[in-house]
Amino acid sequence: MKTLPAPVEALVESFARLPGIGPKSASRLAFYLLKAPDEVSIELAKALEELKANTGHCSRCFNITLAGEELCDICLSENRSEAILCVVEEPMDVLAIERTGAYQGKYHVLMGVLSPIDGIGPDQIKIFPLLERLKLGEVKEVIIATNPSMEGDATALYLQQRIAPMGIKVSRLARGLPVGADIEYADQNTLQRALSGRQSMD
Amino acid sequence: MKTLPAPVEALVESFARLPGIGPKSASRLAFYLLKAPDEVSIELAKALEELKANTGHCSRCFNITLAGEELCDICLSENRSEAILCVVEEPMDVLAIERTGAYQGKYHVLMGVLSPIDGIGPDQIKIFPLLERLKLGEVKEVIIATNPSMEGDATALYLQQRIAPMGIKVSRLARGLPVGADIEYADQNTLQRALSGRQSMD
Repeated sequence: MKTLPAPVEALVESFARLPGIGPKSASRLAFYLLKAPDEVSIELAKALEELKANTGHCSRCFNITLAGEELCDICLSENRSEAILCVVEEPMDVLAIERTGAYQGKYHVLMGVLSPIDGIGPDQIKIFPLLERLKLGEVKEVIIATNPSMEGDATALYLQQRIAPMGIKVSRLARGLPVGADIEYADQNTLQRALSGRQSMD
Repeated sequence: MKTLPAPVEALVESFARLPGIGPKSASRLAFYLLKAPDEVSIELAKALEELKANTGHCSRCFNITLAGEELCDICLSENRSEAILCVVEEPMDVLAIERTGAYQGKYHVLMGVLSPIDGIGPDQIKIFPLLERLKLGEVKEVIIATNPSMEGDATALYLQQRIAPMGIKVSRLARGLPVGADIEYADQNTLQRALSGRQSMD
């Protein structure tokens, strides 16, 4: 027996297509919106429609910008060092690093990660613009902040092999125990990394 | 430093207003949509806009219907008993009970639950239409399927006191251990209910 009217079903399906939202959460959201004031769903709909129309990518670092803007706020900022460049996979990673308040250089967003199985090679992501940018000679250190995953590791290695010969220092985010972790519950790989990357206490 | 362009920020805020979506999931969804094909966000926006415009409530049981339809599919169904009525808090509860396939009567959706602290009395929810419906004399048993919460209990008690004098049998969903539960981890109240409501094995 069909129990959900088509418009509710359509919304449940649209929600369930999003990452981290299963069929149950999707119907919970739909029923919440049915009960909530009209503005809640209308505002969300407006924000969704304006998302793609009103945003673009920085032509230099590929971070998200307002549509029509050539460069993002970070690229335009004169208070940030041009000598240090942090290379990340996605725009969201920029946000995460900015939140720490511990980084004052510029960024380069790869817009993906090398993944030969998925047919993603150096030409499918923003590696060529990165190398072009480095050739200008302003950058003295590149911090590779790809994810500590198999693809992130492969991408980091590839970048290191291309960038080091240019006489630029290449580093990578430290791997080890996350703050607040319990050694007894840490997974084997993390513990191995924490051991091999042990830091001097001098 | 402002790091998110306004259109992304607006979408993150709209998502974060939904139940069960925190600020982190909200930005994950926004960045996912930035990367996903345009159709994904456009379809979701369309579904949201059509949700309220194209749905209404059944004039008899208050379940969700298509806009313009007087009665819902369940009320219209001639294969379902008119003699047994299941009273639930929300339209979503109808869906949950329908999924069991174990119920073949009709429904009445209260559209809320008694909650004096929040100023919700019998007049704020669909109790009066329920009593009017019962006066027609067709219903022989009312199953009260409000949530096993304080408000759900109070609503069930209130309904029982109003309905029993009409000569209609009133029952409530069984309370006890959920299927698959571990007795050693069951909370005290559930175990107490399971004991006092123990079922004969004859």
